Amino acid sequence: MIVVMKHEATQEQVDSVVERIVQMGCQPHTSLGEERSVIGIIGDVRKINREQIEMMDGVEHTLLVSKPFKLASREFHPDDTRVVVNDVTIGNQRVVVMAGPCAVESREQLMETAAAVKDAGAHILRGGAFKPRTSPYGFQGLGEEGLRLLAEAREMTGLPVVTEVMDPQMVPLVAAYADILQVGARNMQNFALLHLLGEMGRPVLLKRGLMSTIEELLMAAEYILSHGNAQVILCERGIRTFETYTRNTLDISAVPLLKQLTHLPVIVDPSHGTGKWELVEPLSRAAVAAGADGLIIEVHPHPEQALSDGAQSLKPAKFSTLINSVRSVAAAVGREL
Amino acid sequence: MIVVMKHEATQEQVDSVVERIVQMGCQPHTSLGEERSVIGIIGDVRKINREQIEMMDGVEHTLLVSKPFKLASREFHPDDTRVVVNDVTIGNQRVVVMAGPCAVESREQLMETAAAVKDAGAHILRGGAFKPRTSPYGFQGLGEEGLRLLAEAREMTGLPVVTEVMDPQMVPLVAAYADILQVGARNMQNFALLHLLGEMGRPVLLKRGLMSTIEELLMAAEYILSHGNAQVILCERGIRTFETYTRNTLDISAVPLLKQLTHLPVIVDPSHGTGKWELVEPLSRAAVAAGADGLIIEVHPHPEQALSDGAQSLKPAKFSTLINSVRSVAAAVGREL
Amino acid sequence: MIVVMKHEATQEQVDSVVERIVQMGCQPHTSLGEERSVIGIIGDVRKINREQIEMMDGVEHTLLVSKPFKLASREFHPDDTRVVVNDVTIGNQRVVVMAGPCAVESREQLMETAAAVKDAGAHILRGGAFKPRTSPYGFQGLGEEGLRLLAEAREMTGLPVVTEVMDPQMVPLVAAYADILQVGARNMQNFALLHLLGEMGRPVLLKRGLMSTIEELLMAAEYILSHGNAQVILCERGIRTFETYTRNTLDISAVPLLKQLTHLPVIVDPSHGTGKWELVEPLSRAAVAAGADGLIIEVHPHPEQALSDGAQSLKPAKFSTLINSVRSVAAAVGREL
Amino acid sequence: MIVVMKHEATQEQVDSVVERIVQMGCQPHTSLGEERSVIGIIGDVRKINREQIEMMDGVEHTLLVSKPFKLASREFHPDDTRVVVNDVTIGNQRVVVMAGPCAVESREQLMETAAAVKDAGAHILRGGAFKPRTSPYGFQGLGEEGLRLLAEAREMTGLPVVTEVMDPQMVPLVAAYADILQVGARNMQNFALLHLLGEMGRPVLLKRGLMSTIEELLMAAEYILSHGNAQVILCERGIRTFETYTRNTLDISAVPLLKQLTHLPVIVDPSHGTGKWELVEPLSRAAVAAGADGLIIEVHPHPEQALSDGAQSLKPAKFSTLINSVRSVAAAVGREL
Repeated sequence: MIVVMKHEATQEQVDSVVERIVQMGCQPHTSLGEERSVIGIIGDVRKINREQIEMMDGVEHTLLVSKPFKLASREFHPDDTRVVVNDVTIGNQRVVVMAGPCAVESREQLMETAAAVKDAGAHILRGGAFKPRTSPYGFQGLGEEGLRLLAEAREMTGLPVVTEVMDPQMVPLVAAYADILQVGARNMQNFALLHLLGEMGRPVLLKRGLMSTIEELLMAAEYILSHGNAQVILCERGIRTFETYTRNTLDISAVPLLKQLTHLPVIVDPSHGTGKWELVEPLSRAAVAAGADGLIIEVHPHPEQALSDGAQSLKPAKFSTLINSVRSVAAAVGREL
Repeated sequence: MIVVMKHEATQEQVDSVVERIVQMGCQPHTSLGEERSVIGIIGDVRKINREQIEMMDGVEHTLLVSKPFKLASREFHPDDTRVVVNDVTIGNQRVVVMAGPCAVESREQLMETAAAVKDAGAHILRGGAFKPRTSPYGFQGLGEEGLRLLAEAREMTGLPVVTEVMDPQMVPLVAAYADILQVGARNMQNFALLHLLGEMGRPVLLKRGLMSTIEELLMAAEYILSHGNAQVILCERGIRTFETYTRNTLDISAVPLLKQLTHLPVIVDPSHGTGKWELVEPLSRAAVAAGADGLIIEVHPHPEQALSDGAQSLKPAKFSTLINSVRSVAAAVGREL
Repeated sequence: MIVVMKHEATQEQVDSVVERIVQMGCQPHTSLGEERSVIGIIGDVRKINREQIEMMDGVEHTLLVSKPFKLASREFHPDDTRVVVNDVTIGNQRVVVMAGPCAVESREQLMETAAAVKDAGAHILRGGAFKPRTSPYGFQGLGEEGLRLLAEAREMTGLPVVTEVMDPQMVPLVAAYADILQVGARNMQNFALLHLLGEMGRPVLLKRGLMSTIEELLMAAEYILSHGNAQVILCERGIRTFETYTRNTLDISAVPLLKQLTHLPVIVDPSHGTGKWELVEPLSRAAVAAGADGLIIEVHPHPEQALSDGAQSLKPAKFSTLINSVRSVAAAVGREL
Repeated sequence: MIVVMKHEATQEQVDSVVERIVQMGCQPHTSLGEERSVIGIIGDVRKINREQIEMMDGVEHTLLVSKPFKLASREFHPDDTRVVVNDVTIGNQRVVVMAGPCAVESREQLMETAAAVKDAGAHILRGGAFKPRTSPYGFQGLGEEGLRLLAEAREMTGLPVVTEVMDPQMVPLVAAYADILQVGARNMQNFALLHLLGEMGRPVLLKRGLMSTIEELLMAAEYILSHGNAQVILCERGIRTFETYTRNTLDISAVPLLKQLTHLPVIVDPSHGTGKWELVEPLSRAAVAAGADGLIIEVHPHPEQALSDGAQSLKPAKFSTLINSVRSVAAAVGREL
């Protein structure tokens, strides 16, 4: 950390910052510039309360030299983390595809979709039993009945199941049915939930918040890792910007950037990333070309009757086309699907 | 709601949209334009599944004519809602000031601050017992001990207490101590929490998410109202933008706009809105000049030793100056403080 | 266009809107809903002054049914536009690569780069002679000397040249040397410049403003097209968001979306899109996988000595690797490079 | 400036950065941390090419310690700049109001508006003769005829005139008629225009770009100042965010922040800042309460017939009410109007 003093700071003010740094257990190194003094801090800067330093008289601001995440950082853990769920490995040479309906609506809808995505080549089944909805008047999901249907679809297809958990109280229930617990974008900073999932030890799919920075995503992962669970998959699913032609703006740069910054696997959700089914196939290709370890895609047998997110859901035949098209791109970048 | 058909849509496609609207219980009115057909939908449009319509062949998109919130809407409930807490009324002619430390850190710190803000003229005491922190390594609050201290400070000063509740499981505990339950910006769309607070009936201070539109804020309020609780105070606390010189961008326009759109009281948090204590006083004046019903402000006796948010906390003497300065502005716009 | 009346609008107010629409030369169609009246407008809505209608008593707001661009729209011009520059065609089955230094710095630097990008397989040479710089103290480009060097490099390599023109006064000068005239992101809404380029008839590379919506980009193209020039190439180069780990956020969804909305060719600038050379190769692959018709990439023989944008420039050897890697992806999506 | 080396950087890499800094004419100070080395740069850092340093092997990134603007900075020029136009001073104790139509449409419209705003207490007349419009099909202004009408209105009322200049070629023409030359938000980084206005010496009203940072605004001012013209007024007029209920988001924090960072006067445009006439009065009050030196407001005698921006224009009677209401707030913060 670097402390930048004000142009007009006095020697006494510099001295008291230096003293405070020593009290906090680090070593200060002062440089006297022509315009202002600058104090470098050496040692374990987690001991430094940055806000307190910034409030001292004569201090202009502080600058972070290192990233605030450690356990999630590739710098300190160079080898790729692989998340293993039954016989599927995420973070491997093989691109993993998770697919299924936005929401579980009925046994018929789920079984039809599950069979179709398995046939097309998906590796994991997705489906929502508890749905976060902007409006209190929207469909909120089937709840535990939805979880039971997901487990039944796993029986039928052999595909592991990923589903969202919105509330710490629901974690034991959802964990009783699901293989991977998903933290949705709106809950990326639900710290009580992250804490509990850290203690559970079950694989977690952590979606980036729609207005969260890459650093905040990695800090949310750090919450889970620091409570003992290293089985975390990150998911880029689009951020909120001023553009209104798409539901969100898929931040494709996040994929290679996250692969540099962290050892955790990174997947992409092109369905929420755009909100338009016509864009899902080209963006799935783009995600794999950019280095994503997997995709999570909404598929519905009758999108025009879907109870949520129909506009971004693919019909099974289009999903099958997508898989073939993505498979070619995967091969072009030295991977398989 | 309006359904806009594609330029090349066939008569059959128009007919099947019309038929579907009738099935859903509304009346369609078709206009045949030169470029495309447009179908207006009349009746209770909450019966219409908009996404399903958008997925039908020949449909280009749909347009909403009315706002999606009803209970929170001023159009249908013209009179101002007043939230009453002990002898303090929020939403009245008098501007209400809530003040106190970001986090409760110790008995000494809290009692000193509480006495100071009461002396300066504050009406309600704020303070965090459970703190949402971006980093798992940051101070997470004193928990129940913090709640007990807040209750003790209320005894001492007579000021009602507002404090944050982050997790549905904690609602009974927090409600046992606090007068107003605060939903923080990161939890604005924690729907399980909103649902429960709707059933509790205790006054709620609902902060706008840093990534949330005004419409989403009103929909979050609609969750609470639709579960039976009309005692909701809205709080503008800054949104995330590309600007980095301030921590957030305080959306001052939200104040008069919310006063138009809803009957609920609206307050402003200039501390989080800017992240810089030097800006808190001018923005407090601006908020009241724009029509805010109140302010919530962070005060700390020794900001340079604060365990969180020191950089945006005012010392008691500066807070006292602020109160006097805001009082003049309140008088200039026909209100009191 | 649709006019939505207020809940409480009177019959007289509805009548006077209807009358005004007729005066403006269109036909009104009124629907009487339970909550409010809605008036559809049929005919050539470019005759309607939307803002005037919105100011009439009783009007709540208006909604656009059609897109505001016509000449740039694929709906009315389904066939792809191809821009031909010497023997290079942009908008064809072949992916076109434009490459070269951010700024022309010296004969030696330019000739070395031009030879290298040609060897690696680039089709068009890029290089800035006039540079827009945020700081008045930054390098502003070589000016006309830079243009002369670009023409010399074209002689040497046979590659057509694209370079930026920032100011209408400079158009004749730049056009005397360059094959394609580039409008930079900061000038996307420099309407005097767009107007003049419309009249020139020379191919234009129009970069999306970092603060511009897709609709505004298409309206800027409409300026050029409506003044008589159909030779316009659109370029996605990243938008400004809250994320700070990248210089801009490359909006990859814009590629397939623009291909749907317009007949004009669409290329991607992954150098400005990210600001980091390490991300340029993965994003180039992603752009082509998403359907881009070309790429524009910064290459510098000695990025650590570049006078501008060194951090996002590739060395020639890395550019050559990129070309090979993108070629595989192009083949995977049925195109060549 | 601070150079942060990578965790794994070698001593040779540190040495060559040190050497390069010396070559560029500054002094390096190296600190060896546990995790990485950090090199402080002392001297006139404008001599350092930051991008070149960032490209050197072993360098992770660089951090700026000082702000990049000097001439515009209050740190180096503590006294307020006052811009004097005839007998009006901007940047003084008196709040200055500029008012008039968005566009000059006719002699009748302009004279009626000019007389009305003068009567209500405005100090300067605004009006657009050249209008930047998103669509090529929109009204583009009366051009030189508009300038002549503005000069005539000045004759009649005695009010100085501010009007926009969009293009360097037009500067002599506009300067022949106007007292203050306005740079619009879309042209904030039109560097050819800024350069020329720096050489002209006429007062400039510089509007913040709708997606420009405060630092970029100050760098744009630095262009004008560094070419010899210190008569610059800054204008906050709203930035682009994800919120769609308002046309832009007025960044009210920019007012006190700019007053801290720079000695230049700061005014606010609440008309463009919101796009809704109902919000103009509360935001005018807020701007003055926050410390603005002035306001620029759109007034039109018949907004429902305005050729542009009718929705955000006030009728003269409402403008007169606004002036009275703002006058009370000005008095409450120790200023006059």
